Amino acid sequence: MPLIDSLAREGQTRIVLAIADGLGGLPRRGKTELESAATPNLDRLAARSSLGLAVPVEPGVTPGSGPAHLALFGYDPLEYQVGRGVLEALGIGLEVGPRDLCCRANFATLGPDGLVSDRRAGRISTELCAKLCARLQDVVRAITGAEVIVAPGKEHRFVVVFRSDGLDEAVAETDPQHTGAAPASPTALRPEAAKSAALVAEFVRLSVSALAQEKNANCVLLRGFAKVPKIPTMNERFRLKPACIAAYPMYRGLARLVGMDLVECGAEWKDELDALGQRAAGYDFVYIHFKETDRAGEDGDFDAKVELIERFDEEVVPALERVKPDVLCITGDHSTPALMAGHSWHPVPVLLASAYGRGPAQAGGFTERACNQGSLGRFYSRQLMGLLLAHAMRLAKFGA
Amino acid sequence: MPLIDSLAREGQTRIVLAIADGLGGLPRRGKTELESAATPNLDRLAARSSLGLAVPVEPGVTPGSGPAHLALFGYDPLEYQVGRGVLEALGIGLEVGPRDLCCRANFATLGPDGLVSDRRAGRISTELCAKLCARLQDVVRAITGAEVIVAPGKEHRFVVVFRSDGLDEAVAETDPQHTGAAPASPTALRPEAAKSAALVAEFVRLSVSALAQEKNANCVLLRGFAKVPKIPTMNERFRLKPACIAAYPMYRGLARLVGMDLVECGAEWKDELDALGQRAAGYDFVYIHFKETDRAGEDGDFDAKVELIERFDEEVVPALERVKPDVLCITGDHSTPALMAGHSWHPVPVLLASAYGRGPAQAGGFTERACNQGSLGRFYSRQLMGLLLAHAMRLAKFGA
Repeated sequence: MPLIDSLAREGQTRIVLAIADGLGGLPRRGKTELESAATPNLDRLAARSSLGLAVPVEPGVTPGSGPAHLALFGYDPLEYQVGRGVLEALGIGLEVGPRDLCCRANFATLGPDGLVSDRRAGRISTELCAKLCARLQDVVRAITGAEVIVAPGKEHRFVVVFRSDGLDEAVAETDPQHTGAAPASPTALRPEAAKSAALVAEFVRLSVSALAQEKNANCVLLRGFAKVPKIPTMNERFRLKPACIAAYPMYRGLARLVGMDLVECGAEWKDELDALGQRAAGYDFVYIHFKETDRAGEDGDFDAKVELIERFDEEVVPALERVKPDVLCITGDHSTPALMAGHSWHPVPVLLASAYGRGPAQAGGFTERACNQGSLGRFYSRQLMGLLLAHAMRLAKFGA
Repeated sequence: MPLIDSLAREGQTRIVLAIADGLGGLPRRGKTELESAATPNLDRLAARSSLGLAVPVEPGVTPGSGPAHLALFGYDPLEYQVGRGVLEALGIGLEVGPRDLCCRANFATLGPDGLVSDRRAGRISTELCAKLCARLQDVVRAITGAEVIVAPGKEHRFVVVFRSDGLDEAVAETDPQHTGAAPASPTALRPEAAKSAALVAEFVRLSVSALAQEKNANCVLLRGFAKVPKIPTMNERFRLKPACIAAYPMYRGLARLVGMDLVECGAEWKDELDALGQRAAGYDFVYIHFKETDRAGEDGDFDAKVELIERFDEEVVPALERVKPDVLCITGDHSTPALMAGHSWHPVPVLLASAYGRGPAQAGGFTERACNQGSLGRFYSRQLMGLLLAHAMRLAKFGA
């Protein structure tokens, strides 16, 4: 058992962990997005907080959202890996459980020679994708031995979930990964996966038959077979009653994987903050997620990210303070520098406000630079939970 | 498989890792060697670079050149240990392979009582050592079952390599480590080493017989039996095509152990830099090594080390920049403070210039102090390779 788990105890204190997705950045003309933004509320808060930098996985490693979030929730991202199929299912809002085998799927085009001529079926519209998924959902009711869920994504993408006992994720993907090749067989990669492989093969057979008349989308390619990993809940590990407030399905899904209650809320920041104000009292750990900062970074839009940080400062920070958490932590799951237009490996600024911090090294607001000098130092994201619990007086002493 | 290895991918970018051996130092009258040196080029480069400190092995541990370099090349120095005999063989420029059992040897003096009276044979001259080694090389051709190579070192030191199948390094050393004792038998320390032990015993017998008429060097003492460890290459691990530019045999040997191509060059810094200019284009990772800074530190000569750092700044830094690497890293393998006249455990300053760094915390040049405030933070030397690959955009994202 990890040390933190063995020391965790119940308490009356409340922790709020607020994630501005993709928060960390890189300098443009000498200043990062955080340094460029006018953030009077964060600066005021930083002056009474402890700062630090969190390394999401290890130096140089850029995380996806799954490992980045699991680390923040206190889970070693190398020990608990969530497969691609499961993340895709979570991302479109499917509820997944321990009996489910999930996979990503594409509609694709098969030529008259039986070879894949377009792995994305000409990027069919999202509307057509939904229509075809409904057709497949109808057809696959004929499959015995498992419930099969077919759920549309964007354009040519969809998700298939096989729900039954005894399923195993070691099934070979059917996507040949390049055109001019035939779809591969969903072979069982170990004996335990025989049942799964047979189900997948039957799914493919029924689908191709049902799609025969389609011009582009006359075939399906499946990959990323994954089951939900066995993950002990945050309650079991940390004795917390945790809740998630997140507008986006993937983050709700990740929170559910570690046993958080999902608080209903609308899609806007205001909706999430309203939910926080109304529901925080019922929980002693609240994770609240704001997506848009990451999106601006992914778009490579430095100015938009700066504006979103300023909006975060104006709208979000005061609302977080209003619920008076004993420990308030504001950070990102990873950096998404506009300069790189994508996730990066750079350590993420962390602000931790509590009655028991050493405080800032010097007045410098909440920036990557100030966090690099901060009293929390540099630590791995998976170690954050220990710091949060400690500042919330929820860890017993180790040893006598 | 280590995480970095699983994420590494090929690319078009180039990394140059320049090692000023023993770079880190300790203050004399308040300033370290780096702080005392006038280094306008390093200061200018530092202003557009990220800085940090690398801990060679773990806090407080002083490394030899072998583990210090392996760590910089991305190898855990505790997992991959290169035995003394192999390092000595590499140090005098021998090529060693997987069938080789290497050891360090001394000429020594045996008294009429059969006990060792001088473990260094009165420190015979290097010339005499070479002459005696040639004689032994001639004599040991009589040994069957293995090729034996006898190669002279400095003064009383030489190296013996036994080349055959089925050799094992678990052979007891024959050096009693103090005078007044008889040379020990080269006992097999496990059954697999029986063949090796017999070969060594035969080597000793033939040598003593051939040296019987020598006044001082009438005996040989062998120790540090070691085979070359199995090490996956940098190409296998990191998908790099790596090259080594180093004037000194040991560093060339260490580079060869991890699969680098050895670029021919002369003994002077200018020769190494010429080789870099001419050959860098053929490789995507170039390790270039400069020995003299370490030597001045080992000599305890603070001023000489300062001068060499100034020469490094003037001659080396501009030449490194001229090959326009995507990632340029300047660091040491370990610290060699003149104050200590030897290697030390102190973390080593690291400068990393790339398009994707957070930059320096503040203007402060390239010093231990500036690196301690740097945006790369403090990390283990074995983690440097992950940072280099990341900044070279050669690591895939971890997880979705």
